Amino acid sequence: MIKINENFLDLQDSYLFSTIARKVADYQKNNPDKRIIKLGIGDVTLPIVPAVIEAMHKAVDEMGNKETFRGYGPEQGYEFLRERIVEHDYKRHGIDISPDEIFVSDGAKTDCGNIGDIFGINNTVAITDPVYPVYLDTNVMAGRSGKYNDSTGKFEKIIYVPTTAENNFVPKLPDEVPDMIYLCLPNNPTGTTLKKEELKVWVDYALENKSIILFDAAYEAYISEAGIPHSIYEIEGAKKVAIEFKSFSKTAGFTGMRCAYTVVPKELMGYTADGKEVEIHKLWNRRHGTKFNGVSYPVQRAAEAAYSEEGDKQIRKNIEYYMNNAKIIRDGLVEAGYTVYGGVNAPYIWLKIPEGMNSWDFFDMLLEKCNVVGTPGVGFGPSGEGYFRLTAFGTKENTEEAIERIKTILK
Amino acid sequence: MIKINENFLDLQDSYLFSTIARKVADYQKNNPDKRIIKLGIGDVTLPIVPAVIEAMHKAVDEMGNKETFRGYGPEQGYEFLRERIVEHDYKRHGIDISPDEIFVSDGAKTDCGNIGDIFGINNTVAITDPVYPVYLDTNVMAGRSGKYNDSTGKFEKIIYVPTTAENNFVPKLPDEVPDMIYLCLPNNPTGTTLKKEELKVWVDYALENKSIILFDAAYEAYISEAGIPHSIYEIEGAKKVAIEFKSFSKTAGFTGMRCAYTVVPKELMGYTADGKEVEIHKLWNRRHGTKFNGVSYPVQRAAEAAYSEEGDKQIRKNIEYYMNNAKIIRDGLVEAGYTVYGGVNAPYIWLKIPEGMNSWDFFDMLLEKCNVVGTPGVGFGPSGEGYFRLTAFGTKENTEEAIERIKTILK
Repeated sequence: MIKINENFLDLQDSYLFSTIARKVADYQKNNPDKRIIKLGIGDVTLPIVPAVIEAMHKAVDEMGNKETFRGYGPEQGYEFLRERIVEHDYKRHGIDISPDEIFVSDGAKTDCGNIGDIFGINNTVAITDPVYPVYLDTNVMAGRSGKYNDSTGKFEKIIYVPTTAENNFVPKLPDEVPDMIYLCLPNNPTGTTLKKEELKVWVDYALENKSIILFDAAYEAYISEAGIPHSIYEIEGAKKVAIEFKSFSKTAGFTGMRCAYTVVPKELMGYTADGKEVEIHKLWNRRHGTKFNGVSYPVQRAAEAAYSEEGDKQIRKNIEYYMNNAKIIRDGLVEAGYTVYGGVNAPYIWLKIPEGMNSWDFFDMLLEKCNVVGTPGVGFGPSGEGYFRLTAFGTKENTEEAIERIKTILK
Repeated sequence: MIKINENFLDLQDSYLFSTIARKVADYQKNNPDKRIIKLGIGDVTLPIVPAVIEAMHKAVDEMGNKETFRGYGPEQGYEFLRERIVEHDYKRHGIDISPDEIFVSDGAKTDCGNIGDIFGINNTVAITDPVYPVYLDTNVMAGRSGKYNDSTGKFEKIIYVPTTAENNFVPKLPDEVPDMIYLCLPNNPTGTTLKKEELKVWVDYALENKSIILFDAAYEAYISEAGIPHSIYEIEGAKKVAIEFKSFSKTAGFTGMRCAYTVVPKELMGYTADGKEVEIHKLWNRRHGTKFNGVSYPVQRAAEAAYSEEGDKQIRKNIEYYMNNAKIIRDGLVEAGYTVYGGVNAPYIWLKIPEGMNSWDFFDMLLEKCNVVGTPGVGFGPSGEGYFRLTAFGTKENTEEAIERIKTILK
């Protein structure tokens, strides 16, 4: 008899985005004349830049030609791309990472989700709260979470690390030492990040306890301030304790193209139950080669072109466009009397909801009074209650109008 | 302390292809004047057909245009592709599968590897022997294999089902009933397949025992004979017990493009330890949506075009080209006095090695005397000993010359 993985039955269905969609549809149906502006979406909207499109066309042509056709590529990714990644994202910042420490994949979500395969299920897991749900859900599936407690909104065995205005969005080291620590910086959903010395605290903690940090740097390209680490490997010793996930999704607008990469340094060690050291790189290499067959060749050429001089310049312009939206949102909300976080080193603005309202109340009010859609913070975890996420991925015109409505109506 | 998944330490390193590469390189170095022909490779060589290339160019342009740009697509795959799959691969054969039972992915290897996530680790696993190594290795990683036994060349808890000339390549039902059964038909590496009534034996067996069949149909497009099932769902009741994996890799030459799909029927059930029924479709949907973000949009448009009238016609021509190579190999080897299997409904020819030689002896002889490279059967499992795999993916000219050499020298 085929037995299922019963951990799946512990997963909590997220009704966040379906509830939002239903509420928006209902409102629109009852108010067909209203123009609703959506600032809830976490997806890019600007088209892929010309330099990347051109490179992809060229690669597609190669695939149609007998002399240049390519079948299976290396599972780890083509060297032409891994070398560019090392050059542009690491060497340039003075970080020594070698191309064979890079694993090209179809998405950071995929890698963040699959990385658990190589770790024992008896590891304890820490997540910041609020959080990107994939870190949590994949550990529930693996059997590391324990049962869900309805009254707390938390899983019994997960270590929740609150990241809120109370601690200035600098997560405190937990009392119980976790074996696996997920950090997403710049953060989704809060839009905040850590300074180098603040991140160093976590790296030192992991070094001291032989924990591993799973570092999601998907929003790295949005960092605008000095002193903010672009990679966890800027911190001394991090190569001994951290895996870094990066993506072309938010950087080069690849959410529909699908390309990302994961860095697994060779000096990173895991342990057997009896304390024997094992290279994590070897385990991930085996996992990646056994369950994955590499990223589409034209997509890898497209990603390569994102690093070209022309491509990089064009991409920077798109990021500036989004970050200008972020500024419009921030400034407008402050003017309207709101307290806001994020939006300086990330495309997300995390807004403190006025006293006496919860995040769904605020959602309803914003929808009904201003016809603007955002995301209730509680959808990202218990500590997200009292907050609300707006994103900078709309058009400038819509962003301006949405903020103007909020300023006029909710001031 | 971060604990590794110690099951990874039970994996057996495969030196098959690296050993082949080293032997070939050594021989070439010592014999620089010899022209070596490789018929060992399991990868397509003909370029992607024009109809597919054209569709992909169009989709790439869409991604570069503000009005037609697409970000995140549905994790399960775009409906335009899932509908074509249903129409072309199922309805046309009188099989009732609905588009929401199709999960588009980046590869059958990925899906065959990841499918285990949704099943308990206490299930017993049967694989045919010889076998495509991914089924075995991913179950070792998951902890379902038990330890490797050096003297037998087998894992303790895996149920090996020999598929050899002795049983006419029709695997016998095992004595111990497995919970999970991997079948690859047409088969890699043997190139043989089962008739409808032979496959029905397995479906009935799974129905009787509530086992699940994981059916890899990656080579379906190469079937040339009548009475051979193109899908396991041609067998009555199979939707209650089988997941089917299909790929564009060998069909449309997508090994470098990356697109495949998996069918999980809604009536397929798994069970909790206490015997409660659970829909497998729901579990896979949750797994797929949590750890995957969909296939690249231009690749999905390319796959769609493989089903167009023009695309389909062009692809059939490529398959005919490869299958003509298969015929050249088969006929030539028979003429040279060899016993051969496969090559009629699959691009692989499985050759019986003459008495007194093992598969590595034969490899060496073929390389040194004929300068032809193939794959020793023992590399695919203990029951592969005494056999040798040649593939039809070379050029016609090379295939003819290789066979001519064998006929002349080894006759």
